[in-house]
Amino acid sequence: MLNLQGAVLLSSTEENIPRWTEELKKNAPDIDLRVWPDVGREEDIEFAIVARPPAGDLARYSNLRAIFSMWAGVADLLADESISHLPIYRMTDPGLTVGIVIYVVHHVTGLHILADEYKPRLWAHPFRVDNLSPECSCVGILGLGVLGTACANALVDLGFRVIGYSNTRKEIPGVESFVGQDGLKDFLGQTDILVCILPNTAETHNFMNRQTLAYLPTGAKIINCGRGESIDDDALLEALRSGHISKAVLDVFRTEPLPPEHPYWEEPNVLVTPHCASKPDPVSGSVRILDKIESFLKNEPIEGMVDRHRAY
Amino acid sequence: MLNLQGAVLLSSTEENIPRWTEELKKNAPDIDLRVWPDVGREEDIEFAIVARPPAGDLARYSNLRAIFSMWAGVADLLADESISHLPIYRMTDPGLTVGIVIYVVHHVTGLHILADEYKPRLWAHPFRVDNLSPECSCVGILGLGVLGTACANALVDLGFRVIGYSNTRKEIPGVESFVGQDGLKDFLGQTDILVCILPNTAETHNFMNRQTLAYLPTGAKIINCGRGESIDDDALLEALRSGHISKAVLDVFRTEPLPPEHPYWEEPNVLVTPHCASKPDPVSGSVRILDKIESFLKNEPIEGMVDRHRAY
Repeated sequence: MLNLQGAVLLSSTEENIPRWTEELKKNAPDIDLRVWPDVGREEDIEFAIVARPPAGDLARYSNLRAIFSMWAGVADLLADESISHLPIYRMTDPGLTVGIVIYVVHHVTGLHILADEYKPRLWAHPFRVDNLSPECSCVGILGLGVLGTACANALVDLGFRVIGYSNTRKEIPGVESFVGQDGLKDFLGQTDILVCILPNTAETHNFMNRQTLAYLPTGAKIINCGRGESIDDDALLEALRSGHISKAVLDVFRTEPLPPEHPYWEEPNVLVTPHCASKPDPVSGSVRILDKIESFLKNEPIEGMVDRHRAY
Repeated sequence: MLNLQGAVLLSSTEENIPRWTEELKKNAPDIDLRVWPDVGREEDIEFAIVARPPAGDLARYSNLRAIFSMWAGVADLLADESISHLPIYRMTDPGLTVGIVIYVVHHVTGLHILADEYKPRLWAHPFRVDNLSPECSCVGILGLGVLGTACANALVDLGFRVIGYSNTRKEIPGVESFVGQDGLKDFLGQTDILVCILPNTAETHNFMNRQTLAYLPTGAKIINCGRGESIDDDALLEALRSGHISKAVLDVFRTEPLPPEHPYWEEPNVLVTPHCASKPDPVSGSVRILDKIESFLKNEPIEGMVDRHRAY
């Protein structure tokens, strides 16, 4: 049982709040849960569970002690200066990871076997001879955090050649790890299928730009299931149109929903998916957040604490 | 070096024969390789390496001792009574297995995340809440031979619930094994995504028929990458049209290429792929076959020996 003095705010403009409410109450029946916009006395609120809460709203809870995100991405919360004094904890549910892994495995295998080249009434193998073996495709994982590492492991198990790039060198069995500026050029130069799974920070803004896209071999393919901000959209469109990049599977965008007039929708070798690679699961996610609140109350370490300097 | 007295015939109306010739000669430079139709003296031929050879052709090589298939499927060779006195060895290359695994993983993950429901310009999650976790989909593997077992293992690793059905009970970690008539009903009743990977034998003819399709839960999905003969096409079309089966991904057919007028091409919830789940790899496949010929000459046991009674 949570030994809470105050109330817990549940606030989101995007998540399925009735389901989260149900699960939170099931797992913590004594919780004084206030569901935005029916928050009651603002001073009662001690903790907030949020996913894209109404802009600026969190500033009005004067006794708020910590913010727990239903999502793994917290860039919008970090950008809100009115709450810069409060600790933020990202979602770290294994259910989020497995969703990303399934999405990445589906699209990497599809790009490898050229699944989108099957045409109605066309009985023809889309393959060149000898390239069916997964070790013929080198998958480069850009960002080896929890999600990237899980994807790398799954792809190694399936027999792909897997390499990774990250800020610090990682030890993942079967995965060559690259770091630094020279490492980036080597890493991209060997990558047939790039999986971008970077967090959204100042450092990752337009990480894939005209120059870094040019490091990829001709015909390379890109999957982005990290954050839209890490790709320079104009540079990617240009690389797609020149044929330097042969396919892109994009789940995340600078503006979501992706506006109907955005050129990605009409670009022949782009697959747009509606930020669905992974969704927080109210069943396991609510348990994770309640555990984090309990750890907070006990002054225990909490997984997913956001470092404002690294911005993730 | 192979200690061959006679010549080796390479004969196929479908495979990439120049590539196989190249690889066989690279790995056995001393081999007296005769490539159909330039076979020279028929009596010289001691062994045949084949994939759908010209109908009835093999009967004319009076000194032929054994037949090595470039393919895993050998039903056409077994049906040829003119060679019923000769031993047949199927392809057992790991490259074949890995191709099937990649195909099955791609399509199981796609059916699980409803990948074909993404529509251009539609920003909407196709998912119901709470069904993103792979354990929410039960994958039933029909046929737990080398290929089925490899698929089962890969899907267990990805987090799917996996069950299997086969002639004899199998011990595969994480996979419940069903056998017998009662077992079949239980097995199909729990299966959300059925992966048919049966060999083509008298026993598997129309294995999935009106009755067995009805054992599947409403909305079940089917992948067939075994043999076309194991599904009753009329019954499957009927089940698709009634909505009992919601999707089918079919790689194998009774008649291949699938005739242009076949209703599968136009059926909305059917994806036809051109028997491309796996292809024998000339690089590794030629090494495998040469090893088998060597074992034959040394009277050693040979993997992939076809049992004419079981018909596979």
